Amino acid sequence: MYTVCVREHVMIAHSFQGEVFGPAQRLHGATYIVDVEFRRSELDENGLVVDIGRASDALKSIVARYAYRNLDEMAEFAGKNTTTELFAKTVFDRMKAHIDAGDVGPGSVGLHSLRVVLHESHVAWAAYEGRLT
Amino acid sequence: MYTVCVREHVMIAHSFQGEVFGPAQRLHGATYIVDVEFRRSELDENGLVVDIGRASDALKSIVARYAYRNLDEMAEFAGKNTTTELFAKTVFDRMKAHIDAGDVGPGSVGLHSLRVVLHESHVAWAAYEGRLT
Amino acid sequence: MYTVCVREHVMIAHSFQGEVFGPAQRLHGATYIVDVEFRRSELDENGLVVDIGRASDALKSIVARYAYRNLDEMAEFAGKNTTTELFAKTVFDRMKAHIDAGDVGPGSVGLHSLRVVLHESHVAWAAYEGRLT
Amino acid sequence: MYTVCVREHVMIAHSFQGEVFGPAQRLHGATYIVDVEFRRSELDENGLVVDIGRASDALKSIVARYAYRNLDEMAEFAGKNTTTELFAKTVFDRMKAHIDAGDVGPGSVGLHSLRVVLHESHVAWAAYEGRLT
Amino acid sequence: MYTVCVREHVMIAHSFQGEVFGPAQRLHGATYIVDVEFRRSELDENGLVVDIGRASDALKSIVARYAYRNLDEMAEFAGKNTTTELFAKTVFDRMKAHIDAGDVGPGSVGLHSLRVVLHESHVAWAAYEGRLT
Amino acid sequence: MYTVCVREHVMIAHSFQGEVFGPAQRLHGATYIVDVEFRRSELDENGLVVDIGRASDALKSIVARYAYRNLDEMAEFAGKNTTTELFAKTVFDRMKAHIDAGDVGPGSVGLHSLRVVLHESHVAWAAYEGRLT
Repeated sequence: MYTVCVREHVMIAHSFQGEVFGPAQRLHGATYIVDVEFRRSELDENGLVVDIGRASDALKSIVARYAYRNLDEMAEFAGKNTTTELFAKTVFDRMKAHIDAGDVGPGSVGLHSLRVVLHESHVAWAAYEGRLT
Repeated sequence: MYTVCVREHVMIAHSFQGEVFGPAQRLHGATYIVDVEFRRSELDENGLVVDIGRASDALKSIVARYAYRNLDEMAEFAGKNTTTELFAKTVFDRMKAHIDAGDVGPGSVGLHSLRVVLHESHVAWAAYEGRLT
Repeated sequence: MYTVCVREHVMIAHSFQGEVFGPAQRLHGATYIVDVEFRRSELDENGLVVDIGRASDALKSIVARYAYRNLDEMAEFAGKNTTTELFAKTVFDRMKAHIDAGDVGPGSVGLHSLRVVLHESHVAWAAYEGRLT
Repeated sequence: MYTVCVREHVMIAHSFQGEVFGPAQRLHGATYIVDVEFRRSELDENGLVVDIGRASDALKSIVARYAYRNLDEMAEFAGKNTTTELFAKTVFDRMKAHIDAGDVGPGSVGLHSLRVVLHESHVAWAAYEGRLT
Repeated sequence: MYTVCVREHVMIAHSFQGEVFGPAQRLHGATYIVDVEFRRSELDENGLVVDIGRASDALKSIVARYAYRNLDEMAEFAGKNTTTELFAKTVFDRMKAHIDAGDVGPGSVGLHSLRVVLHESHVAWAAYEGRLT
Repeated sequence: MYTVCVREHVMIAHSFQGEVFGPAQRLHGATYIVDVEFRRSELDENGLVVDIGRASDALKSIVARYAYRNLDEMAEFAGKNTTTELFAKTVFDRMKAHIDAGDVGPGSVGLHSLRVVLHESHVAWAAYEGRLT
């Protein structure tokens, strides 16, 4: 199995609901360093897992949607805690939609799975991974 | 599948038995940077894989047991080489015991698996991973 | 010249005033990984630049003041943009106050200078450094 | 499952064929930081996944073959694009050959799988992983 | 003294002349991760060392000049070894020219000095720093 | 001013004397990642700060002296606490001796200063720097 990974980052504000979050119930924020890993069992005719330029563009457009935003005010997160793990799933779902729409090129037909890792600090990260087909 | 990872570190002394270890048969030491990854297929009602505060506390108590110790003198390692891979398994077993005892919160019931990665330098690491149920 | 550095992190929300900031004028947030470097020309009688435990405690108390806060609502930043460089200076000033109050131990008498580095992402950081005496 | 990882690096020149590569069709180069992960379900009698010294020597000999070379001029890559993902597979195949030849010691008999990760910058990497038996 | 740093990267081919370079006399290549640090004794009226957006754009235009190039074929390097240290100086000179031309904004008038760090692998880097005025 | 940096690592055991060290008074150990920075105001005729191969060999021979050792048993440290800052000075002194002996090549004549950084974990490091002439 082959993997290719590209990295971007995004800076957001948010707060959490629930006593388990302690002081993080207050409005605060985070820098998320976002890694998206594309997996495929065979390379395409160019020797690639995916067109890295188009994959990067797709990731840039995904993080641009959230860049410098207060996630608490975005309708898509209403009633949800935008934890690092949930936000990883959000990036996964949006990248999957880009792949299904053909935005990362014809090579994406053969993609097996996707993994999104969000680093929130030097001591903590969260991820979501799943099959694509 | 979701993953959440927390990081601590621990500084220990030890030596190894066996010619394969060469100069590492002498008493020496290591800084281990310890990553523990918790995996779960669904988020809990708070949007979490695990209560990160309690998971961190559990990890802190595990590394405290070994911090500033000579592992050669600890009964639990008698007759064993405390290689990085074996020590990763040790942290795995102790975290599993914390999970089974409910120390990382009710959400831990749904945990699928655990992975422990120990970085011993900028050029080498070892890991142990296994199912929890 | 000797240096010792300790690291913590803090997650905050804030916004900026001024067209130069573009989309960062909106409420957003950041994870700051905070490095504080203590410099001294000679080691103390223990072979130390500074009591690392007390220096770490001082840094923990500094970041705790801002942890999970919206900096826009804190009186000390009224009328100021809490840029990464300004926030580095803030941490510098507070650590200097701890040093002057003797909080990092008697060894701090001989400290020559201090440098505070704030990493805001994998591609950007800011710092402030200055003399202590 | 246990994993042990060792790291080396290699600096090479190459070019790519195909419009998808844009400016990377020109002769350029890369530093690849090469991580090889050895996986095994049980430790050997020394408490090891693999003899790390011999594994490192094998990796050093593999990267030496390509060090300071123009990959475009090497027969083994004729008609192929030496993308990061393809080069990861190349290192995988060569390490598998070393394992099959017994070069990483008798413990290698029990190795389950191998993963090779090539970091080409701070924002992109590629990998190949596969079973050994 | 305040510092702000931005990061880009560039992938190039080159070779070296002189026995001291050993196998690096052959055509090979490198990924350079490029950090440019801007230093200033006081912040401007926005609380900034420099307009980070314009500074990033300037750095992007500098690395674009060399991206996916064989440095051996560029007239500006004729008769020179494009060592990591020399290339750091090249980036320094070009950024200084951008600053002198006002490309990084009016705030650049107060800039004190510049430091360029080029990471060529996980085990080696080179830098050039100098005054601006 | 130009800088070139090379990296190695060393794993040692030691203990500290003095109540300030708390649990670190017990026999324990550390992995030190060792960066040595060579500084020079002008490049030599090859475009180099220093012959990187010879500088690396000198650093390798320095760390080999301490590798897999209990520093408490080495005569050169009798009556001293081998803190990270003191050990940085030790590496500095030994590298200076190599330079003075001509071991890093004729180019070393023009070296201005040296900085040694020892990373003991992901959250702490120490350094020593000084002039060479």
